Amino acid sequence: MPQPTERPVVRLRPGRRGRERAPWHYADEVVLDRRTRAIPAGAVVALEDAERRPLGAAAFNPGSKIALRLLDPDPAAAIDADWLARQIGRALALRAALFDAPFYRLAHAEADGLPGVIVDRFGDVAVVQPNAAWAEVRLPALVEALTAVAGVTTVVKNAGGRTRGLEGLDAEGAVFGAPLDGPVEVPMNGATYFADLAGGQKTGLFYDQRPNHAFAARLGRGRAVLDVFAHVGGFALAALAAGAASALAVDGSAAALALAERGAAAGGAAERFEARKADAFDAMPALGAEGRRFGLVVCDPPAFAPNKAALEAGLRAYERVARMGAALVEPDGFLVLCSCSHAADLARFREASLRGVARAGRAAQIVHVGGAGPDHPVHAELPETAYLKALFLRLA
Amino acid sequence: MPQPTERPVVRLRPGRRGRERAPWHYADEVVLDRRTRAIPAGAVVALEDAERRPLGAAAFNPGSKIALRLLDPDPAAAIDADWLARQIGRALALRAALFDAPFYRLAHAEADGLPGVIVDRFGDVAVVQPNAAWAEVRLPALVEALTAVAGVTTVVKNAGGRTRGLEGLDAEGAVFGAPLDGPVEVPMNGATYFADLAGGQKTGLFYDQRPNHAFAARLGRGRAVLDVFAHVGGFALAALAAGAASALAVDGSAAALALAERGAAAGGAAERFEARKADAFDAMPALGAEGRRFGLVVCDPPAFAPNKAALEAGLRAYERVARMGAALVEPDGFLVLCSCSHAADLARFREASLRGVARAGRAAQIVHVGGAGPDHPVHAELPETAYLKALFLRLA
Repeated sequence: MPQPTERPVVRLRPGRRGRERAPWHYADEVVLDRRTRAIPAGAVVALEDAERRPLGAAAFNPGSKIALRLLDPDPAAAIDADWLARQIGRALALRAALFDAPFYRLAHAEADGLPGVIVDRFGDVAVVQPNAAWAEVRLPALVEALTAVAGVTTVVKNAGGRTRGLEGLDAEGAVFGAPLDGPVEVPMNGATYFADLAGGQKTGLFYDQRPNHAFAARLGRGRAVLDVFAHVGGFALAALAAGAASALAVDGSAAALALAERGAAAGGAAERFEARKADAFDAMPALGAEGRRFGLVVCDPPAFAPNKAALEAGLRAYERVARMGAALVEPDGFLVLCSCSHAADLARFREASLRGVARAGRAAQIVHVGGAGPDHPVHAELPETAYLKALFLRLA
Repeated sequence: MPQPTERPVVRLRPGRRGRERAPWHYADEVVLDRRTRAIPAGAVVALEDAERRPLGAAAFNPGSKIALRLLDPDPAAAIDADWLARQIGRALALRAALFDAPFYRLAHAEADGLPGVIVDRFGDVAVVQPNAAWAEVRLPALVEALTAVAGVTTVVKNAGGRTRGLEGLDAEGAVFGAPLDGPVEVPMNGATYFADLAGGQKTGLFYDQRPNHAFAARLGRGRAVLDVFAHVGGFALAALAAGAASALAVDGSAAALALAERGAAAGGAAERFEARKADAFDAMPALGAEGRRFGLVVCDPPAFAPNKAALEAGLRAYERVARMGAALVEPDGFLVLCSCSHAADLARFREASLRGVARAGRAAQIVHVGGAGPDHPVHAELPETAYLKALFLRLA
């Protein structure tokens, strides 16, 4: 690692006032010349504003649209194993205040002072997504810090993140420490989930929906529950643990449904659990035609509007999901509609969802609006990165 | 009560397309002539749009800015004791799904199909705020329905609502059924609160902060907690119940603090509880000067920006509270900032709060953003009435 004394200086272009505390800077905000272009991707530089005032130590990547990521307000800060251990220690302290068991998102990138780095913890296993070049080149130190500070025995490098390509990084995963021995058991909201950390979707399990799982589970007590886009059974298993009469999980992935089934069995709820491998847009009308109705319907689809270009089509898809889901809700039952689309803000998503519900001929009360759990903190300068929305409705 | 057959017709003015499903209509949206002006305040009318299409049965008040409040999509629906019992029954069913004990907001006005009517329930006691003329003239039927459906033995009429004057209603309270015998004991989040339903602020206790009390209480475990604008100890007592090392409640009302003290004693936490009667803006700098620091500071002030005219001054007050509160937070401690201002939306409130925190020289992570509890549902056509914001920050 370069010593602070030999750290290159990179300067912001003029006219960027108010962006001094920003956690990152795009390439077009930065003075890029032959010297800076020669700085290797992932190097730490001393960042200055256009008037040469120091802004801090930043990670630089001349090949990325996000050219600079602020690491430390001290421009001379050593970004070494000790520094990584301090950042992880602070992130860990927040989770220790929030949770009783070591199952959570341990580091949520910029908001936890680790730009571009996601760490999900599953007991003794940490899954790292080093989605920025600075972290990729420091992976051994990151693994060491996670092992030392969090006490994990296995660190999985997940290189499946969509943004790695933009940083010039490959998609090759790795496992450090003790090898994985099948899916990991994850206790959450009284249920037991199984997360396939080697081959699973993203990091095998989504922690962000935890408070929404809990809220829905309460509403589902004594009711028939339908979990559409169920993945490994996030909503279904929490509902069964809380006392749902039954839960039907619909997903397109047989592998995910098999893990959901295993979770239901581990919770002693195998007899109340049913899985259906199907496309959600086919399954919902089919269930309607079969005369099936539910006291609680949850639709947690993939991001239909991941970016601005997909916004209008995405909103139409959310409206369609809402309409189809609403048709399956018993009178005075509940409908939970989720969106993890960055491009669709709460107002637009709510509007599309309520339009869909109205088209199904149902009147709605908004009982609750949930977001991502607190192990997904948000950077003070990036409040708009709160991407997850869960709309809890009661339908007359 | 007028029979449907003799129900007068009131019509919307042209050009109000898209407002057909609105829960209320302002006087300037309505055709007002000598005939309609003669309809008594609180009468039920058959509402039609400008093209004479029926929109439903509505409560009419020619003397109010809100001239019409939609009661039922059926223009001939009898708005009688049975109708009230059905509305209350539906509201009750939602709370039964949400809570194990009968302590909650039982009816939240438009969102529960009871326009202008607030009902808070404290076990056997219901506190009704009939803030619209239609409910005021039907109070005996409302009391009867509450008694029959919810099984309460006492109904308190609270006529202190600010909006009653706009409806031409007086401020005279009343008690129906069994008389009140001192403050009522309210179990919530593991703590015991005391609510003075006869003389207390608003309805004696705010249920809307319940989930935020719970979230803060978890963060306060093992920490010294400061509850500023504490009222009857909402945050302080929940924190003590969850295991806070200590809690200091600051409020300007000695009566409220006495109830908080009583709650702390009832929870066996009298020795960890301290109360200070003071103005918050004096108390916070004073605590700083005394060298007091806290692991969790909560500031839940009254609405500084209740309306648009008060917005700018209100935001400055929120910024000041944030700055003063942040100065009292230990390194890596938590700051919770609340706003119940309708005029300040989340974005403006968050901006003012984070500016205040930055002025105190502290860096913040946004850990969680909370709203009002689910016993405060929101009408699908009025999503902007979600007024309560609670910002949970960790400060480096």
